[in-house]
Amino acid sequence: MKVLGLIVEYNPFHNGHLYHLNKAKEIVKPDFTIAVMSGNFCQRGEPAIIDKFSRAEIALKNGIDVVFELPVVYALQDAGGFAYGAISLLDKLKTVTDIVFGSESADKQFITEVAKTLSINSKEFDKLLKKELKKGMSFPNARKFALKEFLKKDVNFIKKIENSNDILGIEYVKSILKLNSNIKYNVIKRIGARYNELNLTNKYSSATAIRNAIKMDKEFKEFVPDSSYEILKHTFLKGKGPVFLEDMEQFILTFLRLKRREDLKKTYSFNEGLDQRFINTIKNSTTLSEFLDNVKTKRFTYSRIRRAIFHAIFNFEKEYIDFSNKLGVQYARILGFTRKGQKLLSKIKNVSKIPIISNPSLKDKILKKALSSEKFEINKCLFNWQFEKDILASNIYTMFYPKKTQRKYGVDFRKPIIIEGENERNNYRSDRKRM
Amino acid sequence: MKVLGLIVEYNPFHNGHLYHLNKAKEIVKPDFTIAVMSGNFCQRGEPAIIDKFSRAEIALKNGIDVVFELPVVYALQDAGGFAYGAISLLDKLKTVTDIVFGSESADKQFITEVAKTLSINSKEFDKLLKKELKKGMSFPNARKFALKEFLKKDVNFIKKIENSNDILGIEYVKSILKLNSNIKYNVIKRIGARYNELNLTNKYSSATAIRNAIKMDKEFKEFVPDSSYEILKHTFLKGKGPVFLEDMEQFILTFLRLKRREDLKKTYSFNEGLDQRFINTIKNSTTLSEFLDNVKTKRFTYSRIRRAIFHAIFNFEKEYIDFSNKLGVQYARILGFTRKGQKLLSKIKNVSKIPIISNPSLKDKILKKALSSEKFEINKCLFNWQFEKDILASNIYTMFYPKKTQRKYGVDFRKPIIIEGENERNNYRSDRKRM
Repeated sequence: MKVLGLIVEYNPFHNGHLYHLNKAKEIVKPDFTIAVMSGNFCQRGEPAIIDKFSRAEIALKNGIDVVFELPVVYALQDAGGFAYGAISLLDKLKTVTDIVFGSESADKQFITEVAKTLSINSKEFDKLLKKELKKGMSFPNARKFALKEFLKKDVNFIKKIENSNDILGIEYVKSILKLNSNIKYNVIKRIGARYNELNLTNKYSSATAIRNAIKMDKEFKEFVPDSSYEILKHTFLKGKGPVFLEDMEQFILTFLRLKRREDLKKTYSFNEGLDQRFINTIKNSTTLSEFLDNVKTKRFTYSRIRRAIFHAIFNFEKEYIDFSNKLGVQYARILGFTRKGQKLLSKIKNVSKIPIISNPSLKDKILKKALSSEKFEINKCLFNWQFEKDILASNIYTMFYPKKTQRKYGVDFRKPIIIEGENERNNYRSDRKRM
Repeated sequence: MKVLGLIVEYNPFHNGHLYHLNKAKEIVKPDFTIAVMSGNFCQRGEPAIIDKFSRAEIALKNGIDVVFELPVVYALQDAGGFAYGAISLLDKLKTVTDIVFGSESADKQFITEVAKTLSINSKEFDKLLKKELKKGMSFPNARKFALKEFLKKDVNFIKKIENSNDILGIEYVKSILKLNSNIKYNVIKRIGARYNELNLTNKYSSATAIRNAIKMDKEFKEFVPDSSYEILKHTFLKGKGPVFLEDMEQFILTFLRLKRREDLKKTYSFNEGLDQRFINTIKNSTTLSEFLDNVKTKRFTYSRIRRAIFHAIFNFEKEYIDFSNKLGVQYARILGFTRKGQKLLSKIKNVSKIPIISNPSLKDKILKKALSSEKFEINKCLFNWQFEKDILASNIYTMFYPKKTQRKYGVDFRKPIIIEGENERNNYRSDRKRM
């Protein structure tokens, strides 16, 4: 049995995502396809444009059989932490046989070579890396130049490591190596716009461009599959979106004005002087974009700064993130599945090394049972911590829905969405009513 | 030399305030009149409708010679803490000879009798108080019934202690007794509407009614002196107000969703189960009024709940509030003065037991000098703590200005407003420009 795993954000699901999904299926010819998807916050350090349940529903309608949530403590990390969280989830299910990821280069050999180089602890490489870091570069950039020198490569090589999806690809492979996983990986070439292209171009426009179009109230129908369009529109109509980082501006700035340097220092990602930069910059910022621009340096990228803001808000303690990056994901939370996916789920439940959570209200029961079984590889403290942060992230996310009455607490305790294969339309209606 | 001291909020300054001010001057016939005024947050547990500098300016234009700021750690306390902060400030200046306060009863003998009763530690009274508290009543109510029983008084007596200004009056006198202060006190009858009357009535409408009118964009010219109207309008025009508690709704709810019970428990005023009530209630509230209504009980009044929210936001640690209620105000921050008031200020500086801060940028210098002199009665830690909270409160307050570019940090480091006696109009203009 072949099970394809995809690592996604679907923020929102667009034509390029559908192309990638179908292409991946063509290559792997899987019996089932599952996705591990960011929840309500994404790796760029921003709230997702619509909630994770609606995004999961779109995925299910477009050919994914089961959608799992990538815990927020990974979804809001850099490429390395994000990839490790996602790969550890897929690996621990002990069911996924293949993953496929898109990359700008689509050069599997190159990605493998770099991943292997970075996985071997080399003193020589570390020395080169430190040298570059001392120049004040960001970590990704320093690593890029250190790699170039270490592998004695030319300029074309450098270009490849500049592409965000190649970087992610390298991290996926690194995580597979680290976990000694049996999962096979395939690389396909991304089509259409670069992921952070700001403007709509052709039918394969980037998620960033589509979000910008939505922000400016422009039509975006031609850039997303029909079901994606329908669910996005429906969600907006209910006052549950779109949610943008800018909507959180007043909260974020007020929150940061309350923080002392000591508070920040305890939080993950406030090293290399970022804590002091936050404290100094907040004094000169009346808008969020002003704040981000003023914190930005060669070393601190926008994404890193935005993620750091959420690390502070959600109180991502250093020790627990380090612990998470050692032990991996502690549970697999199901956001939704198709009737077909249900069959896979019963198989997964037999072999998975982490508990499967379909009803978060039963968390304590699930955890207790899992701890009493030898089958699972979990840590009670870390499980609770990761779970608590997921719940917290949702409770904060909903506070920024346009419609006040939708700003509900505890939406995370909804059961997963179930999509019938045959009778999608009717089921869609009845499911939406429960939201 | 007679110096009249008034304890005020002027939120905003209206006809009743002017009447009270003139009446007080008639009674005391002072050489100078000073006010100690709440800063950007008021005792009801709400942001002031406009900032403290603008409110100070209105006061100066209406006959106050010097406006001092009541530190926020007192301004946001119940009647007892509020009164103690204000009286301790006035007393420590060693210049104020008289205070006058308005009260519903205007019964000085009654107020004095009750204040004395409450000042004497009586086991019998404590027993009666505890008995009433056990019934689940709020502290003010329990005290009221305990007093009735202790003093063997009738129903009319009870009515007097229900009036908020009588209650405040009792607390002023208690503080005078506690500090063994030489300040003489006078009581005058309040005119016009009750302070929390919601609707505009006659030219002496309550501040609450005027704030409501402003909220609903109704004309309010006839209820406030011209200069008050002018400065209010001017402040609104600049996008620096009006500021309402409701403007902070999304911030407050998001902030509270992030709080754990352990965090609240460390904070002043989260006793008697209020912490647990906050944690439970936030789960069922999508709006602030819903939250307030759901936390409200016989024991917890709306004002107490609102103040508690700010205690959590500003992190009012229990120990430091207790310390503040023991040692009193640690400095006297000047918000503004008239040319006439300037003469008084130089006298105050010679005799005051606490340092006078006219330029907060010089805080460290002022504190250092004060600590090296025997003249002052201050505690370094407490001084810094009270000062830090004042600065913090302003930095949070400005975040809720309607106009984003006005949401400045560090506005507290402005110098005090100076009003010329003769040439008010011109000076007004040049002063406003500096803001």
